[in-house]
Amino acid sequence: MQQLIERIKRDGVVRPGGVLKVDSFLNHQIDPALSYDMAKEIRRLFADEKVDKILTIEASGIGMAVLTGLVFGCPVLFAKKSKTINLSDDIYSTTVYSFTHQVSKQVLVSKRYLNPGERVLIVDDFLANGAALEGLCDIVGQAGAEVVGAAVAIEKAFQPGGERLRGKGLRIEALARIASMSDDSIEFCED
Amino acid sequence: MQQLIERIKRDGVVRPGGVLKVDSFLNHQIDPALSYDMAKEIRRLFADEKVDKILTIEASGIGMAVLTGLVFGCPVLFAKKSKTINLSDDIYSTTVYSFTHQVSKQVLVSKRYLNPGERVLIVDDFLANGAALEGLCDIVGQAGAEVVGAAVAIEKAFQPGGERLRGKGLRIEALARIASMSDDSIEFCED
Repeated sequence: MQQLIERIKRDGVVRPGGVLKVDSFLNHQIDPALSYDMAKEIRRLFADEKVDKILTIEASGIGMAVLTGLVFGCPVLFAKKSKTINLSDDIYSTTVYSFTHQVSKQVLVSKRYLNPGERVLIVDDFLANGAALEGLCDIVGQAGAEVVGAAVAIEKAFQPGGERLRGKGLRIEALARIASMSDDSIEFCED
Repeated sequence: MQQLIERIKRDGVVRPGGVLKVDSFLNHQIDPALSYDMAKEIRRLFADEKVDKILTIEASGIGMAVLTGLVFGCPVLFAKKSKTINLSDDIYSTTVYSFTHQVSKQVLVSKRYLNPGERVLIVDDFLANGAALEGLCDIVGQAGAEVVGAAVAIEKAFQPGGERLRGKGLRIEALARIASMSDDSIEFCED
């Protein structure tokens, strides 16, 4: 998505350790007009699919997910993060390792809001190692629902998540795919 | 806002201890069409005010805040919660006590995204004891910016936050104000 790529080029900041800061428009401060255009692009990419529900994970995926739900005309569900294992009968849970924060967290969804047979589109801001997407797919599977695919704003294509999850058959659409980053440049995949 | 009141009557669940569960449409699963209508109502209520930025706090305020930013045509900033005190020079922080979880958390905003003189509208899903709103007002004050007011989806008017903060001169618009709750009924304020 050219608009997002241009914005990353203009406002993204590369930090040591392969960190891309986009907190001026995506995951701390949010440009809602850009996010709305991203949601419409996701709708275009998944125009051939019936989608019953959008699923994301707190916190930085929520804005984009809510706008995507508005465009699709369907509910949005966000998984909650918890440091403690919640053994309630009422929730689906899975463990997700955060490479950024080097900690494992439980990710929780109320059973009430994911139903067998529902067609779920997963939305998130970043795809790098793929742990969050994998955890969300696991939760959808526990519910007996079906993952239609995943839409992410930015894929770090030089990290292994995208290839591994596509290899498992997950359809992933990334609005911007980064091939490589260095202190003074960001190279995008040509596709 | 009648549409929100009707939805709370239909889908809200009162739990022991004065807890109102609205996680089927507001803060776990989200109805984006309702949230968009809420954002438009907030725009109507603050039509007389110039607003440069929307400020909320993760996680459950984000969806509503992003839609409000879309309607106002301005950026949205969400404060992050942290259990550790972050002493970075780059952030404004304050401490917010959560009565729900009975724990204090640091609330952080990057200094880069709040500027002196900016006119800030605070948006959140709930107002009860007012600790979150108060913390966000504190952060806006640290930045030398100005709080235009606060818009909340649901005010528990039987709890002290609204009265205390209005007493300090904060303009608060609540889309639904609950006068009292019991196991089998929710009474709304007439206003």
